[in-house]
Amino acid sequence: MSMTAMNRILEIDPADRLVRCEPGVVTAELAAAVAGHGLFYPPDPVSGQTCTIGGNLATGAGGVCCVKYGVSADYALGLSVVLADGTLTRTGRRTVKGVAGYDLTRLFVGSEGTLGVIVEATLALRPARPPALAMLAQFRSAREAGDAVAAIVAAGHVPSALELMDRATTRAVVDLGHPLLASGEAATLIVESDAPDPGTHIAAMAELCRAAGAIHLELASDAERTAEILRARRLISPAVYKILEGMPGRPTAFIEDVAVPRSRLAAMIERIEEISARYGLYISATGHAGDGNLHPLVLFDQDDEGEVRKAENAYDAIMAAGAELGGTITGEHGVGLLKRDWLRRELDPAALLLQHALKRMLDPSGILNPGKVFDV
Amino acid sequence: MSMTAMNRILEIDPADRLVRCEPGVVTAELAAAVAGHGLFYPPDPVSGQTCTIGGNLATGAGGVCCVKYGVSADYALGLSVVLADGTLTRTGRRTVKGVAGYDLTRLFVGSEGTLGVIVEATLALRPARPPALAMLAQFRSAREAGDAVAAIVAAGHVPSALELMDRATTRAVVDLGHPLLASGEAATLIVESDAPDPGTHIAAMAELCRAAGAIHLELASDAERTAEILRARRLISPAVYKILEGMPGRPTAFIEDVAVPRSRLAAMIERIEEISARYGLYISATGHAGDGNLHPLVLFDQDDEGEVRKAENAYDAIMAAGAELGGTITGEHGVGLLKRDWLRRELDPAALLLQHALKRMLDPSGILNPGKVFDV
Repeated sequence: MSMTAMNRILEIDPADRLVRCEPGVVTAELAAAVAGHGLFYPPDPVSGQTCTIGGNLATGAGGVCCVKYGVSADYALGLSVVLADGTLTRTGRRTVKGVAGYDLTRLFVGSEGTLGVIVEATLALRPARPPALAMLAQFRSAREAGDAVAAIVAAGHVPSALELMDRATTRAVVDLGHPLLASGEAATLIVESDAPDPGTHIAAMAELCRAAGAIHLELASDAERTAEILRARRLISPAVYKILEGMPGRPTAFIEDVAVPRSRLAAMIERIEEISARYGLYISATGHAGDGNLHPLVLFDQDDEGEVRKAENAYDAIMAAGAELGGTITGEHGVGLLKRDWLRRELDPAALLLQHALKRMLDPSGILNPGKVFDV
Repeated sequence: MSMTAMNRILEIDPADRLVRCEPGVVTAELAAAVAGHGLFYPPDPVSGQTCTIGGNLATGAGGVCCVKYGVSADYALGLSVVLADGTLTRTGRRTVKGVAGYDLTRLFVGSEGTLGVIVEATLALRPARPPALAMLAQFRSAREAGDAVAAIVAAGHVPSALELMDRATTRAVVDLGHPLLASGEAATLIVESDAPDPGTHIAAMAELCRAAGAIHLELASDAERTAEILRARRLISPAVYKILEGMPGRPTAFIEDVAVPRSRLAAMIERIEEISARYGLYISATGHAGDGNLHPLVLFDQDDEGEVRKAENAYDAIMAAGAELGGTITGEHGVGLLKRDWLRRELDPAALLLQHALKRMLDPSGILNPGKVFDV
């Protein structure tokens, strides 16, 4: 069901720091509209220029600055939802706090359209944030980059972005001509701070990167250099497309979304490198390192049956590795069709039965996004 | 059901910034234990020395610094819950992010023990925060104090406490001998900042208070003075007890928990003053002004039937006023027995039916905290 025609921003309320909108509003357009009132809507999926608030809420989407500011779910104050029988209902509130009854808002957020159709959302906002500065740190190995992330977290730093590109992705971005990346052979961290004194803050985090083995550091001292550094993050998708173009057959990719406890990030990256080697597939691991949330891309030729099978096995192996390290099969993208089997493995059996019961209760005829999340 | 014997802290993990504990752990003891590892558990109900994590999660408790750091629900990563049929299940995760299936954690948090019994919680932590500084601002009227709160919010400030005492409470605290309160006749704001430069931050907020009409300002420049200012907040309960002691008969109080959009705070305070005058009852309105969350106390003699009825009517009038101003009947205390009728009025009819259905689904025999929240 497409909600893109319901794309109005209904209200921006600076006094109460909230916005009310329809589900088809594009995320970046919402963020720009509230910025015009000195306000900040933090959730910033990398697809922000095309994804919508409705989709963000349905999947519980995250983004780059969520490491400091939380995910879409954290900003959902209230919803209007059409239930399976056509009833329109409202959940939540306009107040900052509220505990009147069970939290239906959070039940619909992240339910991937399987419990109801979100037709309006009231979202909390923050004050505009101060100007940020960014830095790049490059390492000889993914393990070292993971160690740097652990050191930054353990020291109590809260950067506003802490993104990782592994060896393959770094090389692909260098090949696209990013001027500040010194080497195509190393893992890269992109770190941003919007703390009141961001220069001092990124310098302190750079020191921890150096101690973890960083061989190349670039610290921005102005907005222009910061933009150039952050551009590397946005070059990942074009870089991956370029790799796909150069592959034989009809190449495509499985996009993973595994999240592990932050302390296991380096271990997870090494597992992905092992899996890539084991199956002889190009797998890049980028993601929101500060959240322990990685998006490995398993690249394969969909016309090559053997490679499709290998890609499916590699995809499974990555989820198994994440589970083994205490993680989850999905940090911010959701379950959809591809991860239904894995959801069964991740959830406690009684919790899975509860989820089934919730689905049956809210959608007894199974008409809401049928087959997604689980098949009941 | 008392869970106070299940009071072990099972794990403190600084690398992943989380704590795992049983429900009977006292909130302040948990906060102290994690502080020993350089970590910070923000939810700080005023009853923190006696309330427990299980109770905090069951009610979705807030506290003083929630204006900056969010409420108990925001820190619940995962739970172990005993269901009505005795099954033990697990919800949630140990990772920062995760969207695998419906959000059962948030369904149990705030459900007041009516859907299951929380027997273990995994809670997110923050890095220790920097030293804070506090200020006091006193006003000739509650309206002016409310205007100051609105100005602080509108200017984009995020204090770590923004508490209000109305005329009656201020007078009661002055009577207990707090040395920094200059007048017993005015509304008082207690403001704290733990920003990197808290002195500059509280000075900026003090300027907004002055512009809103503050007649007396006290800005702390050290930890000792800050503690003295914050002590005024903790004197509220003793002050109220002292007022109760001085009342005839068998005095007691209804504790309200209404939350309104922050912009309506001043209007809400005026409504409470009107209701106090209308019913001839002593009603103090204190609370978490920065969240728009007030805790009016309706004082009455429970041996005086006429006064009990007046107190009940005043209590209802306060909730009605909150609802009229776009608020909720409970910001952080929950519904319990007293607010069941009002929950029916606040919730959308279809949402209320959904809540009933959830209760029936999870507790078909009605054995979990029977009669609380709603009677189904």
